Amino acid sequence: MKTVKIALLGLGNVGTGTYSVLEMNREQIEAAVGAHIMIDKILTRDAKKKRTIDVSDDQIGVLGAAMKDKKKKRTIHISPEQLTQNYEDIVNDPEIDIVVEVMGGVEPATTYMLDAMRNKKHVVTANKAALAANFDKLKKCAEENNVMFRFEASVAGGIPILSAITSVLRGNQFYEVMGIINGTTNYMLTQMTDHGLAYDDVLKIAQEKGFAEADPTDDVEGIDVANKLTILIYIMFNKYVKPGDIPTEGISKITKEQIEDAKAQGCKIKLIANARYFNGEFECSVKPTLLRNDHPLCGVNNEFNAVFIRGNAVGDLMFYGKGAGPLPTGSAVVGDVIEIAQRIND
Amino acid sequence: MKTVKIALLGLGNVGTGTYSVLEMNREQIEAAVGAHIMIDKILTRDAKKKRTIDVSDDQIGVLGAAMKDKKKKRTIHISPEQLTQNYEDIVNDPEIDIVVEVMGGVEPATTYMLDAMRNKKHVVTANKAALAANFDKLKKCAEENNVMFRFEASVAGGIPILSAITSVLRGNQFYEVMGIINGTTNYMLTQMTDHGLAYDDVLKIAQEKGFAEADPTDDVEGIDVANKLTILIYIMFNKYVKPGDIPTEGISKITKEQIEDAKAQGCKIKLIANARYFNGEFECSVKPTLLRNDHPLCGVNNEFNAVFIRGNAVGDLMFYGKGAGPLPTGSAVVGDVIEIAQRIND
Repeated sequence: MKTVKIALLGLGNVGTGTYSVLEMNREQIEAAVGAHIMIDKILTRDAKKKRTIDVSDDQIGVLGAAMKDKKKKRTIHISPEQLTQNYEDIVNDPEIDIVVEVMGGVEPATTYMLDAMRNKKHVVTANKAALAANFDKLKKCAEENNVMFRFEASVAGGIPILSAITSVLRGNQFYEVMGIINGTTNYMLTQMTDHGLAYDDVLKIAQEKGFAEADPTDDVEGIDVANKLTILIYIMFNKYVKPGDIPTEGISKITKEQIEDAKAQGCKIKLIANARYFNGEFECSVKPTLLRNDHPLCGVNNEFNAVFIRGNAVGDLMFYGKGAGPLPTGSAVVGDVIEIAQRIND
Repeated sequence: MKTVKIALLGLGNVGTGTYSVLEMNREQIEAAVGAHIMIDKILTRDAKKKRTIDVSDDQIGVLGAAMKDKKKKRTIHISPEQLTQNYEDIVNDPEIDIVVEVMGGVEPATTYMLDAMRNKKHVVTANKAALAANFDKLKKCAEENNVMFRFEASVAGGIPILSAITSVLRGNQFYEVMGIINGTTNYMLTQMTDHGLAYDDVLKIAQEKGFAEADPTDDVEGIDVANKLTILIYIMFNKYVKPGDIPTEGISKITKEQIEDAKAQGCKIKLIANARYFNGEFECSVKPTLLRNDHPLCGVNNEFNAVFIRGNAVGDLMFYGKGAGPLPTGSAVVGDVIEIAQRIND
């Protein structure tokens, strides 16, 4: 059996999740690909630090409890030889087939991905900021170098929406997308709705639970959502609209009273990313939106994400699931790795 | 540009839908594939009958109304040379690349598909009955002949659930699926719930609206659902459970009183296909099931379908959309054709 070698750029939440998913389900993944998958090198800030990844009962999942013979818990010790602080070690290694960029941020991630493509490495990324800023450049570079470039994890985490749109739904022309694609703000709005809490109190709770960052600006002002909407618009409508050009309003000005008003009308307020053709014009926005209780997106609560799309053949479709977290995001990254590894191995 | 030639077996609802979707979105589809797609031959019962397919404003969809310059309505006249009553004309034609089986029923559909594969043709099918009865045989035959075999439309129509499970979600071990995968019965249960109607009255309405057949047995007794569950079990759990071996109960004995009882408990009754690992054992069933109003499947009403799956990495996912109808089903068939045509053309 052939070995497909991959390099991880970053070993934070998503990197660790990717590593875990590969280990949890290695047997099945390698059977699907028909090759060994080896994490050959990992770029980290401190290559001297001892690193372990716990694949626990909980991570093996309800499956651990459900399938008696599968219950196992183990700690993976990452070998110091896998770690490097120097990107050159990865980009210049002719043995690396796939570079998995899970470091986040526009730079140096974009430069690293472009360099990897120029060195004929396939690239998988979970990085919405880099993609939203440099989609054209990255896509063109992949084409010029005849390498595969996949980014399922960049929008709605574990929900396989991007692959569906770019593969089996290609027989459709799309005319609308509406998405709840930020778990932090959806959690906050759900808590405000269910418990009558004020914005500031909910933000504090979300920060305590690790659902919101110390500086929550990117989430609560809709910047993260605008990045993801840029990506959706690109693949659904073949247009590039910069995140900064999308009219964007966050949730920080939503009051208890507005939430109560919505409830009284049989509605909920959700932070909605929307792009559509309407009266012959293309329009897009990110903003808090009143949805009737019977709208499919209205039942999407707490940290869950969902994307609702309309195609001229398929009609209305909705995808629902976890938009963040190491394992769901790792699932999407590993899905992309599998797709590429299968084609390499064909 | 190369031409990929396909043959349709059948020109009923799904065949017509497939033809329409290809015409509605031809430009985009051919750009995605990088080749012309030509419907070269069509197997019908009466090859002398003049046949036309209307691609109407309505079929072009809200898109027609939304994108001013795209408003067009036309009638496609199917050329008599395309039609044949003789399967030999198709299976022995070396120019046909893909056989699209949309005739339904276990036989002769299964034999035709096997013959096509042996003649090195790729096969796409929408036929849940043939698949459920002969999955192993069909899959093995495709492997032996090194041809692609795809069947997205066979479960949940336009919802791209099968492709997702067999491609980008392959990094997961699954431990449960719950599905509302029959539009007829979901329509009937919804109408009983919303309007307090009795089973017999709702059946009559469904028949008048064309949602239920004159002999509704396959739908209302859960037979159609069991066929689809066999397919889901095969691809998610790598097990073959014959539809006849799945404990199956339909909706024909559901009373107004049971529906009212459910409502009083904050629940709805849905016809649920379920397969899961539970306490280390695998179990599956098709039966009317009480779901709490806050369950993601509870908001799936009328003719809509949805499939809820749980993977050990991705967690809970749900896919929602139209499970039947010429265009949604055509979208799924065309999606499979695109995937195969792209690989042929690579």
